[in-house]
Amino acid sequence: MIGKAFKVSIFGESHGTCVGALIEGCPPGLRVDEELLCAELRRRRPGSALTSPRREEDEPVIMSGVFRGRSTGAPILIIIYNRDRDSSFYEAIKDTPRPSHADYVARVKYWGMNDYRGGGIFSGRLTAALVAAGAVAKELLGKHGVRVYSYVVKVGDVEASVKPRDSPEFREAIDASPVKCPDPRASELMEGLVRRVSEEGDSVGGVVETVVFNAPVGLGSPPADTLDGDIAKAVFAVPGVKGVEFGAGFRMAGMRGSEANDPLVIHDGEVVTETNNSGGINGGLSNGAPIVFRVAFRPTPTIRKPQRTVNLATMQPAVIEGWGRHDPCIAIRAAPAVEAVTALVLADHLLRWYSWEGMRSRILG
Amino acid sequence: MIGKAFKVSIFGESHGTCVGALIEGCPPGLRVDEELLCAELRRRRPGSALTSPRREEDEPVIMSGVFRGRSTGAPILIIIYNRDRDSSFYEAIKDTPRPSHADYVARVKYWGMNDYRGGGIFSGRLTAALVAAGAVAKELLGKHGVRVYSYVVKVGDVEASVKPRDSPEFREAIDASPVKCPDPRASELMEGLVRRVSEEGDSVGGVVETVVFNAPVGLGSPPADTLDGDIAKAVFAVPGVKGVEFGAGFRMAGMRGSEANDPLVIHDGEVVTETNNSGGINGGLSNGAPIVFRVAFRPTPTIRKPQRTVNLATMQPAVIEGWGRHDPCIAIRAAPAVEAVTALVLADHLLRWYSWEGMRSRILG
Amino acid sequence: MIGKAFKVSIFGESHGTCVGALIEGCPPGLRVDEELLCAELRRRRPGSALTSPRREEDEPVIMSGVFRGRSTGAPILIIIYNRDRDSSFYEAIKDTPRPSHADYVARVKYWGMNDYRGGGIFSGRLTAALVAAGAVAKELLGKHGVRVYSYVVKVGDVEASVKPRDSPEFREAIDASPVKCPDPRASELMEGLVRRVSEEGDSVGGVVETVVFNAPVGLGSPPADTLDGDIAKAVFAVPGVKGVEFGAGFRMAGMRGSEANDPLVIHDGEVVTETNNSGGINGGLSNGAPIVFRVAFRPTPTIRKPQRTVNLATMQPAVIEGWGRHDPCIAIRAAPAVEAVTALVLADHLLRWYSWEGMRSRILG
Amino acid sequence: MIGKAFKVSIFGESHGTCVGALIEGCPPGLRVDEELLCAELRRRRPGSALTSPRREEDEPVIMSGVFRGRSTGAPILIIIYNRDRDSSFYEAIKDTPRPSHADYVARVKYWGMNDYRGGGIFSGRLTAALVAAGAVAKELLGKHGVRVYSYVVKVGDVEASVKPRDSPEFREAIDASPVKCPDPRASELMEGLVRRVSEEGDSVGGVVETVVFNAPVGLGSPPADTLDGDIAKAVFAVPGVKGVEFGAGFRMAGMRGSEANDPLVIHDGEVVTETNNSGGINGGLSNGAPIVFRVAFRPTPTIRKPQRTVNLATMQPAVIEGWGRHDPCIAIRAAPAVEAVTALVLADHLLRWYSWEGMRSRILG
Repeated sequence: MIGKAFKVSIFGESHGTCVGALIEGCPPGLRVDEELLCAELRRRRPGSALTSPRREEDEPVIMSGVFRGRSTGAPILIIIYNRDRDSSFYEAIKDTPRPSHADYVARVKYWGMNDYRGGGIFSGRLTAALVAAGAVAKELLGKHGVRVYSYVVKVGDVEASVKPRDSPEFREAIDASPVKCPDPRASELMEGLVRRVSEEGDSVGGVVETVVFNAPVGLGSPPADTLDGDIAKAVFAVPGVKGVEFGAGFRMAGMRGSEANDPLVIHDGEVVTETNNSGGINGGLSNGAPIVFRVAFRPTPTIRKPQRTVNLATMQPAVIEGWGRHDPCIAIRAAPAVEAVTALVLADHLLRWYSWEGMRSRILG
Repeated sequence: MIGKAFKVSIFGESHGTCVGALIEGCPPGLRVDEELLCAELRRRRPGSALTSPRREEDEPVIMSGVFRGRSTGAPILIIIYNRDRDSSFYEAIKDTPRPSHADYVARVKYWGMNDYRGGGIFSGRLTAALVAAGAVAKELLGKHGVRVYSYVVKVGDVEASVKPRDSPEFREAIDASPVKCPDPRASELMEGLVRRVSEEGDSVGGVVETVVFNAPVGLGSPPADTLDGDIAKAVFAVPGVKGVEFGAGFRMAGMRGSEANDPLVIHDGEVVTETNNSGGINGGLSNGAPIVFRVAFRPTPTIRKPQRTVNLATMQPAVIEGWGRHDPCIAIRAAPAVEAVTALVLADHLLRWYSWEGMRSRILG
Repeated sequence: MIGKAFKVSIFGESHGTCVGALIEGCPPGLRVDEELLCAELRRRRPGSALTSPRREEDEPVIMSGVFRGRSTGAPILIIIYNRDRDSSFYEAIKDTPRPSHADYVARVKYWGMNDYRGGGIFSGRLTAALVAAGAVAKELLGKHGVRVYSYVVKVGDVEASVKPRDSPEFREAIDASPVKCPDPRASELMEGLVRRVSEEGDSVGGVVETVVFNAPVGLGSPPADTLDGDIAKAVFAVPGVKGVEFGAGFRMAGMRGSEANDPLVIHDGEVVTETNNSGGINGGLSNGAPIVFRVAFRPTPTIRKPQRTVNLATMQPAVIEGWGRHDPCIAIRAAPAVEAVTALVLADHLLRWYSWEGMRSRILG
Repeated sequence: MIGKAFKVSIFGESHGTCVGALIEGCPPGLRVDEELLCAELRRRRPGSALTSPRREEDEPVIMSGVFRGRSTGAPILIIIYNRDRDSSFYEAIKDTPRPSHADYVARVKYWGMNDYRGGGIFSGRLTAALVAAGAVAKELLGKHGVRVYSYVVKVGDVEASVKPRDSPEFREAIDASPVKCPDPRASELMEGLVRRVSEEGDSVGGVVETVVFNAPVGLGSPPADTLDGDIAKAVFAVPGVKGVEFGAGFRMAGMRGSEANDPLVIHDGEVVTETNNSGGINGGLSNGAPIVFRVAFRPTPTIRKPQRTVNLATMQPAVIEGWGRHDPCIAIRAAPAVEAVTALVLADHLLRWYSWEGMRSRILG
C-alpha cells in the first residue's frame, strides 16, 4: 500500500482478468470519472514502434466510491480489464526464467504457485493501475494548485536538455514526444536510438525526471516518513527502477558545500532558495522550491537476443531467445507511472499536512 | 517508523535530553546489552580531525524489553543521553536559517515551535539512535547468517576500488580506515581531501556503498513493499542523503539489455546469477546474490565560509558564517547509519518472510 | 483495513456496482475458488420470511491473486456484483435520515457527496465482502487446525443454551437453523419471535456467540495489538454491533476473583485451564482454551412503524414510515459475518505468530 | 501502537527500569509539561486501603519533543521510572503461573525469555504510560472543546446512578470519590465492599463508564476504522478488560427497533437525537450526541486465597497463595486509563478528521 492518509493498493496480473487499484481515504467531492482516468491512461498507451505491439485499450471501470461523477469519501475501486492476452509463449518458457526478470525470484518466493504468465504481478502492465490511481491524486493536488510532470531526460547515451515549466505548453511538449521527452532534438535522437536497438533485438535504459510545482512548504513527516524517502520508495513500485536522486543527486558527492548549498533570498516578499541543488527538499520536508528528482531505469530485461539461463525442471543450463512483445525502453512508458506515484505520495502528504494545518488556529489561538 | 514486523521509531533532539529508539516486534532470546550497542556506536564516533570536534560518549542505556541480557519480546527502548551540548551559538542564529539545512522548513512546518538548537530532530546526532537499533537488527540477522557492510567509496573526486567480501578482514579494513573506506590507497587520499576541505572552512560530499551477504531469496513484499523500495526509503532517514542506486544503478540507463542482464547459471547445484548488475534484487525481491547499493551524500550544509540567507525576524538579507562544529564530510560518519538502517529493513523483511515460510509445510502438505 | 500480515480491505455500496474485498499478504498454495466462497456466502443469504426479501445471488468473482484454483501470494481481489437494486425509494427519503441509521452522520461526514442509496457503504450488504474474505482466512486457519463457529444465542428475550463443540455436527446444527441457533428449542422460539416482530413492522436485537477451537497459545501482539482488542475492533466492522464481551464478560464485573479465576491443571500432559471464564485470552494472548466471545446486535434500525426525523432540506420535523426491505433481526444474518471477521483476525495473528516461531530454533539454537 | 495520525506506543515492565510512552504525530504548540502529566497520573495513584500498598510516585520525565513547555511536532518520549520494586516474591513463584494472569501465556509466547517479575509488560503499571500520553491527547482535544470523563458505575453488585455532565463539578465528583464513582451513595457502598473483599483476601470486578462531550459529527473512518471499533480495541490495552458496550449495549439485544431507535429532532437549530441509545455513534461515526460506553473489568486475578496451578518446572499440580500487593478492584484504578485511551483514540480521529476538513473549501469551491 502506498500512503497512510491517501492509501492506494494495486492488484492484478499481466495475463489474468484485470489490473487495478483500490484507493482508500480520498476525500469526497472530487471529480472522478472514466474519462479522467482514460486521459491519463492514454499517456502510457503503447502502439508505436517504440513500445510493445501489445494492444492495450485500457478502459478503466470505476466499481465503487464514486456517485454521480464525484468521489464519495468511500473506497474507490478501479479495474482495468486485460483484453489482449496470449499466454501460449509463457507456457513454453515457464521453467526457464528470463534473466534479470522476476521469474526466478517469484518462483522461489511463491513456492511455484505464482501466475508466471507475462510476469504476473511483476509486469509493467500494473503501472496502468498506478496511472489510474494517480489521476485521482492529481485531481486532489489540483485543488491546492500542485502539479506534477514526469518526462524522459535520457535514453542510452542520448541526454536531453529540459527546462521544466509549470504550463500547459510544457505538458503538451511531453505528450507530443513519442519518447516523452520535451526536448525536440533529443526526442528525435532517442527515437532513432530506440528503433535501432529494437531492430537489434536488444533494449536500452533511460532516465525519467520529475518536477513538482507549487507544493506547500513542510510536506513530509520526519523522522520516519520523509517526503524524499516516501517518493523514493514509491518509485520502486514501478518495474525496472534501479536508482533515484533528488536535485543535484549523485553529483553532490563530488561537490563542496560552498557550491552545493542553496542560498536563501527574498523574492516578492517570500523566502526562496536562489538555486535548487537540494531538489526542493531539506530535512525530508518540501522547502517551497520545485521538487526535482530523477529515476534510473534499466534496459527492458526482455530481449530477443539469446541469453543463458537455467531450466529449473531439469536443473540444466538452457538458452532462451526471441520471445514475446516488449518495449525496447521501459523508461518511456514508465514516465507516466512515475508521475502517477509521485502524485500519490504528494496527495498523501498533503492530506497529512492538513491534519495539522486545519487545527493551527485552534492551537495557536 | 521503519518496518512493519520489526518496527523502529526514533526520537530525540541534538541539544535536548537524549536521542534514542523504540524497537517493537523483536523476537525473544537475542543477546541485547549495552556492550553490543556500544561496539556499534563506537563506529560512528567522531573525534578525529576528520569529524566534528563535538565529544560524544554515546553510552546507550537499555530501558525496557531486555531481561538478563536477552530480548524478551517486549518493546525495547534505548536511550543515548546528550552530554556535551553548547546551545549558545544557536540562539544567536535562530532567525537566520542555515542554507540547505532544515532550519527554514522546520520553522515553517512546526509553526516556529521546533527545537532549533543544533538542528533539533534534523541533526546527524539522531543517527546514533539508528545505529543502536541497527545493532539489535544485526543480532537478529546474524541468526540467519545475514551480514551487512557499509563503507565509503567516494569522497569528492576520490573514488575507491572495493571488492566486498563477507569476512572479518573486510569488516576490519572498513573500521581501520578513518574515512570508513576499505581501499587503503583511496582512504589516504580521502583523508587528505577531507583535511584540506576542512581547513578551507568548506565541506565535501561522498558516496556510501552497502553490501548484504546471505539474504535468502524472496525477501520483499511486492507490489507495495519492495525490498529495494523499503531500503531506499529507510536511507533517507539518514540526514544528507540525495540519492540511492542498486547494482549498476544510474549506469544502467546507458546500457543495453544484452549487457545489463545477469545470466542465470548453476553453481554448486544452486541457481545463481553470473553477474550482479541487478544488485541482488529483481522485481523488488532479493534474488540470492549479494544486495549492493550506493547512497549519495551531499556535502555537509554547515560550513564556515560566509553564506547568504535571510533574517526571518526582520525579513532582510543576511550573511551567516563561521559557525559551529561539524563534520566536513557527513558521508563518513553516516556509513554506520546506512549499515544500521539496512539491517533494520532486512530484519523486518526477514521476519515477514518467516511468517509465510513457517507455514509452508502445513500449506503445501 | 483489517490485519497487518493478512490484510483485508472492503469496498462497495449497497446500490452501486458491487461490493468486495481485497486481500493482501495471503500465502501461496491455498485453495481459493468461487465454489469455496459461494459455500460461505450461502450461509448469509436472505430469502426466508426471517430475512430481507431482497434477492441476493451473491456470486463472487475472483479477479486476481488466484491461479489454477490456488492462491499465488499476490493480492486477491474478490467482487460480488449487485444485481437486484431498486433505488427509487431512497430518492424519496434522501433528505429524511432514518433514525439510528448512518444516513445523517454520513451526510455530514461526506459533505453530502455520499451514495445514500440503501445506506451506501453502511449497508449490511458489505458483510458479503467480509464473508468472502473470511472464507479465504478459514482455509488458512484450517492448515493449522483452527476452526471458528459463530451462532445466535439470543434474540429479544429468547436465550439459547449452547454447548459449542468442534465438530461437523455442530456446524450442521448452526446451518440447519433458520436463525443460526444450534439449540433447536430456542431456534424455534426465536423464529416465532422474529416472525411476530416482522408482522408488527418492528425489529428486534440479538446476540451472536463465537467460539474458536485449536488456536495455538500465544496469538496476539501486546501491548498494542492484543488478540481480544483486534477481535473487538473487527466486529465493529459489522453493522449494528453495540457490544462485545469475552468469556464471562460483563458478568465478571459482579464476580469475585476466587470464582472468576481459571485454575491451571494438567490434562493429558498439557497445561490447561479447568474453567474458561477468561474466554481463552489472558493478557491479550490466546491461552490455549477455546476463544469465546459474544457480540450484541441492536434491532435493525429500519422498521415499518412511523418514526420522527428531520427533513434536512427544509430543516422541519418529519415522519418517516413504511420503507423498504429489511431483516427484522440483523443478528441472524450477521452471524456468518462475525465468524468471517474472527477468521480474518486469527489468520492475521497466526501469520504474525509464525514470523517469530519460524525463527525460534535459529534464535534459541 | 494506538492511532494512525496521533500515534502512541507504550513500553516498560512492572519491575524494570521504567514504563513510558512515545507519542508521534502530535502537532506543535500544545502545552506539555511534567506538571500537566503529574496531574493526570495522580488520578490513578494507589495508596489508600482500596488500592495496592505499592508506593508509586509516578514522576513523569519528558525526554524529547517538548521545547520551552510546548510540543514541537517531534516525537514526544515520556518516561516514568519504577522506584519501588521488590521482585523477590516473583522469583519464588516464577514457575507457578498465577491463574487468569498472563504468566503462563507470556512464558509460552516469549519462549521463557519474558520478564516475569510483577507480570512484566502485562502489569497494570503500564497504565501509567497510557495516562501520561492521554494527558497530551486531552490537551489536543481541549483545543476543539472535546472532553472525556471515565468513572466507575459498578463494583460487584453495587451499581451507581450517574448523570454525566460536562462540567468541572462532575470532574470533581469523580476525583473526590476513593472509588472514582461520582454517585456519593454508591461510592460509599463500593468502598465498603472493596474493603470487605480485600479483608477476605479476595478481589471483585467492576464496570467503568466513559462519556465524551462535544466531539464533532463524523469522527471515524469506516469501513475499517470505525470510531467504536477503535475505542473498543484501545480499551483492551488496559489489563483486565473483558467487555465493552456502547449506548444501550447488550440491553439492545432484548429491545425492539421502535424503542431502541433515537428519533432525530431539531434543537436550537441543530439536528440532534432525542435519546441516546446509540451511545453517540452510528455507522462507526460520531453523531454529535455524547459518546457513551461501558467497560467490564474482571476481578483482579491476584488474590491472597489459595489457588490451584501447575509447577511448570516439575509439571506437577501446585497451590499458590498469599502473594503480593494488589488492588482488590482493578476497575477503580483503571478508570483514568480508560479515560486516557479514549482520549488517545479521539485525538487520533480528530487529526484525521481535519485532514479532510482542512481541504473542504478548496474541494467544494
